[in-house]
Amino acid sequence: MKKEINIGLLGLGTVGSGVFEVLTTHRENFQSKVGAELKIKAILEKDVSKVEALGAMNLLAKDVSLILNDPQIDIVVEVIGGIEPAKSFILQAIHKGKQVVTANKELLANYGEEILEAADGCGVDVYFEASVGGGIPIIRPLKECLAGNKILKVMGVVNGTTNFILTKMAEEGLLFKQALKEAQRRGYAERDSSVDVEGHDAAAKIAILASIAFNSRVVASEVFTEGISKVSLSDIAYAQEIGYTIKLIALAKEENGELDVRVHPTMIPLSHPLAAVKGVYNAIFVEGDAVGEVMFFGQGAGSMPAASAVVGDIIDAARNVQYGRSGMIRCTCFESKKIRSIDDIETSYYLLMNVVDKPGVLAKIAKAFGDNDVSLASVIQKGPRGPNAELMFITHRVREKNLRASLSEITELDVVNEICNVIRVEGPRGG
Amino acid sequence: MKKEINIGLLGLGTVGSGVFEVLTTHRENFQSKVGAELKIKAILEKDVSKVEALGAMNLLAKDVSLILNDPQIDIVVEVIGGIEPAKSFILQAIHKGKQVVTANKELLANYGEEILEAADGCGVDVYFEASVGGGIPIIRPLKECLAGNKILKVMGVVNGTTNFILTKMAEEGLLFKQALKEAQRRGYAERDSSVDVEGHDAAAKIAILASIAFNSRVVASEVFTEGISKVSLSDIAYAQEIGYTIKLIALAKEENGELDVRVHPTMIPLSHPLAAVKGVYNAIFVEGDAVGEVMFFGQGAGSMPAASAVVGDIIDAARNVQYGRSGMIRCTCFESKKIRSIDDIETSYYLLMNVVDKPGVLAKIAKAFGDNDVSLASVIQKGPRGPNAELMFITHRVREKNLRASLSEITELDVVNEICNVIRVEGPRGG
Repeated sequence: MKKEINIGLLGLGTVGSGVFEVLTTHRENFQSKVGAELKIKAILEKDVSKVEALGAMNLLAKDVSLILNDPQIDIVVEVIGGIEPAKSFILQAIHKGKQVVTANKELLANYGEEILEAADGCGVDVYFEASVGGGIPIIRPLKECLAGNKILKVMGVVNGTTNFILTKMAEEGLLFKQALKEAQRRGYAERDSSVDVEGHDAAAKIAILASIAFNSRVVASEVFTEGISKVSLSDIAYAQEIGYTIKLIALAKEENGELDVRVHPTMIPLSHPLAAVKGVYNAIFVEGDAVGEVMFFGQGAGSMPAASAVVGDIIDAARNVQYGRSGMIRCTCFESKKIRSIDDIETSYYLLMNVVDKPGVLAKIAKAFGDNDVSLASVIQKGPRGPNAELMFITHRVREKNLRASLSEITELDVVNEICNVIRVEGPRGG
Repeated sequence: MKKEINIGLLGLGTVGSGVFEVLTTHRENFQSKVGAELKIKAILEKDVSKVEALGAMNLLAKDVSLILNDPQIDIVVEVIGGIEPAKSFILQAIHKGKQVVTANKELLANYGEEILEAADGCGVDVYFEASVGGGIPIIRPLKECLAGNKILKVMGVVNGTTNFILTKMAEEGLLFKQALKEAQRRGYAERDSSVDVEGHDAAAKIAILASIAFNSRVVASEVFTEGISKVSLSDIAYAQEIGYTIKLIALAKEENGELDVRVHPTMIPLSHPLAAVKGVYNAIFVEGDAVGEVMFFGQGAGSMPAASAVVGDIIDAARNVQYGRSGMIRCTCFESKKIRSIDDIETSYYLLMNVVDKPGVLAKIAKAFGDNDVSLASVIQKGPRGPNAELMFITHRVREKNLRASLSEITELDVVNEICNVIRVEGPRGG
């Protein structure tokens, strides 16, 4: 048995500094859990001031090769983020026989297959609990605890920034732009807010979750993605009026052997557990054939929550190093399921239109729906305001391409001023 | 590598038949996950009709020794429940070198140390994910994913029967007895409802969770336990009036190196995530120094949810059998922390009294509180109804023995007709 398990830490940013703190603070507890000291032996970080601030200059590695080639380093922790150089570093670490812990959702969601295959070939493990949901345990529960289930659906609020914005809009009546500014002021929005606001962050996360849940690889680019920038206060008010709320939902479900994986603003019933997830909190809802519905809730971002997940992985990796045992849970994408085109998904829709207020308008619109097999569940008319009125529709479950066909006809109607928004609706039971 | 992993199933009741169904239904998927077939080789069940109903008479073992002494059986799954004969069977299986999966909360909460030490000595693993929270992943997340944290608090709604009863009382105005009958009618209450209603089931579960969370053994008998039979509709109405709800909460926290572990009806703010857990659902809320607050939510009982947890454990055990690797995560109770007496806990209290409606009554009661260092946060008076009135108090945080001392003085006051109820209050931040 080793007395020390040595860690090479790549990156000392938000997550890395959290990892440093957690490993330092609970040193004795981890010793008891693993039977060896968990020791950071070297740190790679361009910004030397960060290393200095932690009094860890003695650990600074001038070059990554000093970590990757050090035979005493058992575990490489990658918390640099982004594709390169993280990808090359991880692949090299794998080929050197090191266990790898990473928080890198972008990398996993795009190159997961390459990385996990390399790990498989070299008999090492790659742990990535922190890549989705920050500190919320979800990867391991899905991969292990729920392994007895056929997973039917995974649905989550997995991006704190957008959830903060939508919560501010719903609760305080801020416009999207105002809420975004507030998020940036508080440090919740990344420098380039588009990764969050346009749904790409959530798309990477659902690609990772879907790959595990459905035993079939999904990459980020295969996820239909739509952001929240078009959500208006009117949409939110209508949602509330009919007992719904609007969330940026990342969703993956299997239907007839095909996967339906997407990220978009979604109306969900207020009675759904995800409706109560507010501010920067995240939650992931999983439906399995045996377990029924389970939900995992917590802080989806931040230095310490992410560090919690990374250190959990480090402890797991360290145990495997101690017992000379790794590569036990391999990549579980042993199937290859088709990903359904967005044209072919079926769901309900909320539609808001500004129309001319005169007789026969509703009839014309309803005809366009009917001609395309779009059946309506409810209609609300507001107005008139001056010469115009607002019409809100909720459709029954309909194929997306039929909805779009009806909308292109409706756009052409001279009585329709504008189709203000189209938002997909999830019923309590996959409506 | 083995082609088959053989399972001996002890018990074919509610959980056992679920396990049988899940293992049968997803055979191929498990083969892919484990690299071997998971095969039930023998079933022990007194009630032969249950075995017959599943068409599994060829698997019926006439005696447990046929399972325990069969060298081909790798994993013994105990879903009989209760202390004996489950305990003897499990210990024998351990000594025969078999991996053990059990759903037995009573056994773990009372003899966990003996069983885990035996397993440690024999280099096998005992898995017990299904012992708490039915299908909700909580044992492994707490033991592994959150291992990087110092856990500050575990707090849960872990008994579906009592939660169903309290939900019915709060939402439909049923009396306790009526709600209990409804629970029995629906099969949610066990034959002897006292195990649920008096809090013993929840006490066993929090003992198991606390042992893991705080790395220190807690047995069921050390948990202060109070049931819900005294909760009245008045208590529930007052709770709602001040923005709270009443739940049977199982709670464990560490303060100054001591453990505070208890089960009792508790007022929690409506804004707390546990307040939204209704009906037979369970949820466990965990606070860690790094992760912050996380919550796990789902169905806490039932054949299939429990089977989900058991089969997750079986898959894990089977992987370890495949790779000849077990005993990696041992009992983590490597510390020995004092369990605080109920006299010494500190919390807030809700008190409801029926008093004589005349001048000076409040002064007398307030004096008794003040003399015992009990400070009040709020007071509501209702009435008079005839010669009497109702007084509700919420105290600030106070030591329980001080509260009790004040109440014995108050009981003696001739202006006090009755102290109707005393319910502990948890604030959003451990108030």
